[in-house]
Amino acid sequence: MIILIQCKDQVGLVASVSAILAEAQLNIVSMREHVDQDDNQFFARLEVSNGHYGPELEEKLRGALPPDAFININPLPQKKVMLLVTKEYHCLADILIRNHFGTLGATVLGVIGNHTVLQDICDRFDMPFFHISHEDWSKEEFETKITGIIEQHSPDYIVLAKFMRILSPALVAKFPSRIINIHHSFLPAFIGANPYKKAFERGVKLIGATAHFVSNELDEGPIIAQQIIPVNHSFTAASMVKAGKEIETSVLAKALKMVFEDRVFVYRNKTVVFE
Amino acid sequence: MIILIQCKDQVGLVASVSAILAEAQLNIVSMREHVDQDDNQFFARLEVSNGHYGPELEEKLRGALPPDAFININPLPQKKVMLLVTKEYHCLADILIRNHFGTLGATVLGVIGNHTVLQDICDRFDMPFFHISHEDWSKEEFETKITGIIEQHSPDYIVLAKFMRILSPALVAKFPSRIINIHHSFLPAFIGANPYKKAFERGVKLIGATAHFVSNELDEGPIIAQQIIPVNHSFTAASMVKAGKEIETSVLAKALKMVFEDRVFVYRNKTVVFE
Amino acid sequence: MIILIQCKDQVGLVASVSAILAEAQLNIVSMREHVDQDDNQFFARLEVSNGHYGPELEEKLRGALPPDAFININPLPQKKVMLLVTKEYHCLADILIRNHFGTLGATVLGVIGNHTVLQDICDRFDMPFFHISHEDWSKEEFETKITGIIEQHSPDYIVLAKFMRILSPALVAKFPSRIINIHHSFLPAFIGANPYKKAFERGVKLIGATAHFVSNELDEGPIIAQQIIPVNHSFTAASMVKAGKEIETSVLAKALKMVFEDRVFVYRNKTVVFE
Amino acid sequence: MIILIQCKDQVGLVASVSAILAEAQLNIVSMREHVDQDDNQFFARLEVSNGHYGPELEEKLRGALPPDAFININPLPQKKVMLLVTKEYHCLADILIRNHFGTLGATVLGVIGNHTVLQDICDRFDMPFFHISHEDWSKEEFETKITGIIEQHSPDYIVLAKFMRILSPALVAKFPSRIINIHHSFLPAFIGANPYKKAFERGVKLIGATAHFVSNELDEGPIIAQQIIPVNHSFTAASMVKAGKEIETSVLAKALKMVFEDRVFVYRNKTVVFE
Repeated sequence: MIILIQCKDQVGLVASVSAILAEAQLNIVSMREHVDQDDNQFFARLEVSNGHYGPELEEKLRGALPPDAFININPLPQKKVMLLVTKEYHCLADILIRNHFGTLGATVLGVIGNHTVLQDICDRFDMPFFHISHEDWSKEEFETKITGIIEQHSPDYIVLAKFMRILSPALVAKFPSRIINIHHSFLPAFIGANPYKKAFERGVKLIGATAHFVSNELDEGPIIAQQIIPVNHSFTAASMVKAGKEIETSVLAKALKMVFEDRVFVYRNKTVVFE
Repeated sequence: MIILIQCKDQVGLVASVSAILAEAQLNIVSMREHVDQDDNQFFARLEVSNGHYGPELEEKLRGALPPDAFININPLPQKKVMLLVTKEYHCLADILIRNHFGTLGATVLGVIGNHTVLQDICDRFDMPFFHISHEDWSKEEFETKITGIIEQHSPDYIVLAKFMRILSPALVAKFPSRIINIHHSFLPAFIGANPYKKAFERGVKLIGATAHFVSNELDEGPIIAQQIIPVNHSFTAASMVKAGKEIETSVLAKALKMVFEDRVFVYRNKTVVFE
Repeated sequence: MIILIQCKDQVGLVASVSAILAEAQLNIVSMREHVDQDDNQFFARLEVSNGHYGPELEEKLRGALPPDAFININPLPQKKVMLLVTKEYHCLADILIRNHFGTLGATVLGVIGNHTVLQDICDRFDMPFFHISHEDWSKEEFETKITGIIEQHSPDYIVLAKFMRILSPALVAKFPSRIINIHHSFLPAFIGANPYKKAFERGVKLIGATAHFVSNELDEGPIIAQQIIPVNHSFTAASMVKAGKEIETSVLAKALKMVFEDRVFVYRNKTVVFE
Repeated sequence: MIILIQCKDQVGLVASVSAILAEAQLNIVSMREHVDQDDNQFFARLEVSNGHYGPELEEKLRGALPPDAFININPLPQKKVMLLVTKEYHCLADILIRNHFGTLGATVLGVIGNHTVLQDICDRFDMPFFHISHEDWSKEEFETKITGIIEQHSPDYIVLAKFMRILSPALVAKFPSRIINIHHSFLPAFIGANPYKKAFERGVKLIGATAHFVSNELDEGPIIAQQIIPVNHSFTAASMVKAGKEIETSVLAKALKMVFEDRVFVYRNKTVVFE
């Protein structure tokens, strides 16, 4: 069982929480705790085993913590995810494969695409695909349709697996800290479009990718994971794009693993990730 | 203040410890806890701030933990270190520089060398250098002299900074889990002499280095840190040696940082490192 | 166009080759040359553009080089590959996805499995799957059947994508330097079975994977690519296996890319890889 | 012997060069050639052995290449370097150690500091130290004095080993592609002052360092080498600074190695680095 707690810090929080767990004969087999002393925020992730507990456990914890504490006790029902895609297959295929073989740590409910090229790969995995073209509708109608499909499925998270449209503040506001994007640069370098072209022109010796929660500032949301790979003079902008796909796939997979294993807290446009 | 605890696991350890800290108004700003469930061992590292505490804190903790618990409350006096070297300068120089500028996290008391080539660099940093030649004495006498100098200085740790002699079980037994060695391969590959030559002949695509505590099995002690660098066909055995020195310096520096910051527990020929 | 040359070294080889190319108005846009001075072997990879050339080019090159020189002028017909698998999906699925989307750099002709669990994923990509159970036949018959299917398809390379049976010298000898295996450790550490269990017991701080050509010494063939990932005390042998799959997939993908892009030479149980 | 050539590309350059070398019985043991096809630029680095050659070799090569070709034939006299520093010791100490033990690949002639704190470490290595305070003089006078000392020593390269003053265009123009700086971020992220503070505030999961030639755009010169290290929520801006020093030291060492081994070409605000 995993217990997540985030709240205003004060002396004695670990003592209160661990006393309740000990009383229930629950053994803490792994614990990570962090206090952001600038912000006076307390974060903890506990893996506990053995013991007996029921709904009263959360109630007891809540009684011992500040009133607005965030508490999350797993096992939740398996997390559910909707994917948004455009034309690039690499992140989508990686997620579909993991979902198919039961190693994603979540269940993919369906895929929304603003093009049809990725319908075929979804069909091969019996995965529902919803085509909403951004060309057939105004931006507002386009987003209303997307929101409708998402809300119909009630996912826990929405993953932009190379979805190449910018979402409006209205849509983002509906799913705070629940939309995860993969950006094809090591942010904050190369914000916005064509990062590989910019990287090529700048002559950088490494390129990267960043998985982050989506906020209303373009590519400015809380970063979950970043990785880089070395490049050199023999790379063109096109071969950087190709090499970059590998790292995009890998860093998105890692970020999703962290999120689905309940290792990520969001605050102040940052994350705490207990790896 | 850092508190380290290692003991037999049981339900309620975190509760007992944290209640004592809360009572003393000590705030836990960072905590790492791990239970080895195979071995039923409990490990915890707590960074606490504020509050007041005196010698009674350790007493109270001891009262709440199993009888043979390991407890370590810092600030200790600054850790003290003796270095053993042979002819290669790279690890020694890195440590001397950090020691000189106060960023090592420990104090180097002196350097014992079985050759004299590194006396000059020690002199430049006003660092005592003790020359004990392995050629002038029997192995037993050689080690008796080394042990004598070490014991005279009472170091917390002994660092083999490219010391190319194998220590006898008798000497190792005097300093259990207190002798740190840097081995020039990613163990367990290439145990023993000439690892780079073996790596070259095998045609590996990466070489590495391993910092470990010394036990009585050659290159078999508990591993603290390991790193690798890529190599390719253009490397000779000699250029692997040269490239390897960089990674040896770096991995020993990292291992010492972990040890000096009280992040390393030893058990069952393994380590727990709370990075 | 890519030109590969491997032969005994002598003064003037680059001059002879490049004179022939210049005469044909071919421009060398990228060239890598390496001489193994211990072994007196010459290796070169040239990317050339423009100009006109026909079958006489290879003839001219052959005339200018030592009699037993290896010369390979691309574009060949697209390379063809057979895969051998057992039960683990991760490497297979990665290759099938790349094959499906045309980014593998080769064509997968079919998959041979000694279990049936991976038939379904092959079916989903319309990929022929041949089930040859090692339990239904003697080792000799088992390999005769596998060899038969392979020879029927005439692949350029055979990829052991987590095939958990050891091939006999007779089978290996049929396809020299054409069988590529992924081994789940950074060789030469942890040769043979259960490397993650051994890694866990040794308490290593990094685990890895190695892609290599298969020779008749178990896990001793020429290494093409190796990568590692960090691990720590929180890993069990089982979670090392899981983490290792990521690196196995990645390192096999990289090795295949190098091989399919004609960047790999084999000699003396080693490889030259012009990345 | 190393031969470097950079010039306008045309068909037959390799043939011309290699014919001249073959005629002199020089064997090319390693060769890297690259053509930037956008820019029509040819770059080559050749390591040759054996044979006899004199001053006529360069003359012959010059006759075979376009008129404004850059040709550099080593062994040159050992490269000479001046260092500029402020207060941070880490890059300076690393370079002084390598210089002292003869492994830098160049000779350090002296150190100019705008503070006096690093005089002591220079004295310990008998290294001339020149104190020019930026506070005692106008910027113009300050730079005139620095330029005077540099010109008196005639270095091949000037290394800004954490020199925290921005050089004027006039000074930079005197030493084109000869001033090497270490910047404490993975450019182009966090250009300018306080990159670690910005990195901390942005919540990035990796920080880096960049070694580059100095041009007249702040932090915009040709990049030679870049590296990163992972960070997380437990880092403060101050601990990022500390961790960053390790990577700054390492990346500057690598860039200097590349430059001193004649592996770096500069063009179009980029570099070609034949590693």
